[in-house]
Amino acid sequence: MKAAVFDGKKMRFVPDYPDPNLDEAIVKITLAGICGTDLEMLNGYMGYHGILGHEFVGVVIKSHNKDLMGKRVVGEINVGCGKCQSCKDGMDRHCSNRTVLGILHRNGAFAEFLSLPEKNLHLLPDNVSDEQAVFVEPLAAAFEITQQVDLNPDWKIGIVGDGRLAQLVANVLKLYCSDIVCFGRHQNKLENLKRLGVHTKIGIDSADEHKFDLVVEATGNNSGFSDATRLVKPRGTVILKSTVASQENLDLTPAVVNEITLIGSRCGTFRPAIEALSSKKISVDNLIDSTYPLEKFQDALEHAKKPGTLKVFLKP
Amino acid sequence: MKAAVFDGKKMRFVPDYPDPNLDEAIVKITLAGICGTDLEMLNGYMGYHGILGHEFVGVVIKSHNKDLMGKRVVGEINVGCGKCQSCKDGMDRHCSNRTVLGILHRNGAFAEFLSLPEKNLHLLPDNVSDEQAVFVEPLAAAFEITQQVDLNPDWKIGIVGDGRLAQLVANVLKLYCSDIVCFGRHQNKLENLKRLGVHTKIGIDSADEHKFDLVVEATGNNSGFSDATRLVKPRGTVILKSTVASQENLDLTPAVVNEITLIGSRCGTFRPAIEALSSKKISVDNLIDSTYPLEKFQDALEHAKKPGTLKVFLKP
Repeated sequence: MKAAVFDGKKMRFVPDYPDPNLDEAIVKITLAGICGTDLEMLNGYMGYHGILGHEFVGVVIKSHNKDLMGKRVVGEINVGCGKCQSCKDGMDRHCSNRTVLGILHRNGAFAEFLSLPEKNLHLLPDNVSDEQAVFVEPLAAAFEITQQVDLNPDWKIGIVGDGRLAQLVANVLKLYCSDIVCFGRHQNKLENLKRLGVHTKIGIDSADEHKFDLVVEATGNNSGFSDATRLVKPRGTVILKSTVASQENLDLTPAVVNEITLIGSRCGTFRPAIEALSSKKISVDNLIDSTYPLEKFQDALEHAKKPGTLKVFLKP
Repeated sequence: MKAAVFDGKKMRFVPDYPDPNLDEAIVKITLAGICGTDLEMLNGYMGYHGILGHEFVGVVIKSHNKDLMGKRVVGEINVGCGKCQSCKDGMDRHCSNRTVLGILHRNGAFAEFLSLPEKNLHLLPDNVSDEQAVFVEPLAAAFEITQQVDLNPDWKIGIVGDGRLAQLVANVLKLYCSDIVCFGRHQNKLENLKRLGVHTKIGIDSADEHKFDLVVEATGNNSGFSDATRLVKPRGTVILKSTVASQENLDLTPAVVNEITLIGSRCGTFRPAIEALSSKKISVDNLIDSTYPLEKFQDALEHAKKPGTLKVFLKP
C-alpha cells in the first residue's frame, strides 16, 4: 500500500509498504487529519518510528463483524492489552501495554489502509461528512475535559491558544459555560471564536491575572503553561492539553503557591463527539483548511506548521 | 533588636535592627525553625530582602487583646488585605496583596521580636513544648493535604522525599491511610518513618511505577517531580509541596498522557496541627535536631543544608 513513513528523522513516501496483517478490522482510509501531536512527533516526541496519523475516517473492507463491512467509520486510537486492571476498569486508554494508532507501536493513518480492533470502530451517521468525521478524535479529546471537571455554568473560563484544539475546546465548553475568553495570537483564528460568542484577546494584561476559575492550556507549546498559571485564580483549575517534546520554560512554583489544581487531559471517548457533530450542536466547518494527496505529505506538513493554519487533510 | 537580615545576597547579623512598629501584636520570639523554603530563598527564591524565618513560637508582649498579653503563641504567616474577594472568602492565604512572614514584604522570625495581626495568633496548650510548637506551621502545611483531597483509607500512598516536611506529611497521612511507602535517600531519616509503620525505600524500581493512588512530592527539589509522576497511577493524584528557585528537569507531558491531577499545596490552618500535637496523635520529637543562638545563624544554616539534618532551631 501507499504510506508516508517516519524513520525517526524524516518522513518519506513508500509506494509499496506492507499492508496491515493483524487479525483486526481493516479500514481503507478516506481522509486523515494532521494534528499538533504529529508535528511534535516529527520533533522527536515519543521516539516513534512508523506510519504517523491518528485522525481518520475510512471504510471497513475486512472484519469478523458483518455489521461493520462496507461501513464508514472512525476509530478510537488506544488499544489496551485487555488483561490488566486499567483495561478491566474500562480505561484501556491508560493500559501500560497499550498501542496507540500512529503514536505508539502501531502504524497510523497516513497510508491507504490501517487496522484496529472492531471494538475501537464507531459507525458514522450519514449527516456527518468525511471532513467533519476527521474531527471526531480531537473533538473527543476536547469533550474529555467535561468528564474530568464538574463544570459550573457560572465559571469564568480562559482558553490559552487559538489553534485547532483550542477552537474545539471552546466549542465544547460553550455548551456548558457562557463566559469564555480565548487568549490567542492569530486574528483569523480568533475571528472564528468571536462568531461562537467567545471573547477573544491577543496577549494577557494585568487585569486578566488570577481572574479565571478554569483555564485550558491548549497552545501545544510550553509558553502556554506560564500564561495559564498567570490567568487562573488561586485554588482554581488548569487543564493541561499540550504534549510537547521540549521541557523548557516550566515553573511549577506558582501552582504550588496558589494551590492550583492541574489536570492532565488526553484522549476522550468518541460517542459524545459524534453525537455533537450529528446533532449540529457543534460545527467544525470553519476549522477546515485544505486537503493534499498523500504523496504531497511534505507540502501538507509544511502548511500545517505555519501559524494561522487550521485543519489540513491528507487523502490517500 | 537583634536580627539576622538577608540583603538578597547574603545574611548578616545586625545587633540594632529597628523594632517592629506596625499596629499589630508584638511577639518576643522564644525559638524559630529553619525551613527548606528559607534555604531556597537564600538561593534567590521570591527575591526577598529582610528578616527571614516563618516558623516560630514566642510570647505576646504588646497587644490590644488583653487575653493574648503574656501568652505563649504561634502565628499564621499570611496577612491578607482584608478587602478583596479572597479575604472575604476566608482565603487570606491567597490574597494577591498579602504579606507573608519572612517570605513576602514582612519581616520574619530570625530576630528578637516580630509583629503579626492578633487574628493570626494561636494560644498554645501547656503540654506543647516550645520545640514542638515550632513544628505547628510546617505540620499545618502537611494537614493542608487533608483539606484538598478526600483521602480514601484504602489508597496506596507514596511520599517522595524523607526530609522534614516529608516526615510531617507521613505522620499526617498515617492518621488516614495505612499503606504508605516513603521513597528517600537517607537511612537515618527513613528509620524515623519505619517506627511510624511507614514502608521505606531508597530509590524507585520498575515494580513501583504507576502503582500509587496518591503521591506527595516533598523533596524540596525538582528531581522529585519526575519521580512522583513515575510512581502515580494513570488518573491518580500528585500533591506538589516543593517551591523551588530552579526550573530545570520538569516535564509535564507524562502528567498529560496519564491524565494525572497535580495539586499545588502550601500553607494550612493551624488548628488541626496544634490539636494533633496537644493530643499526642502526632509526635515530632524525633524530628528535632539542634539549636543555635541567633548570632550563630551561619553555622545553623550550614548545618540545616547538610543531607540527613532534621529541624534546626535559632534562639534569639
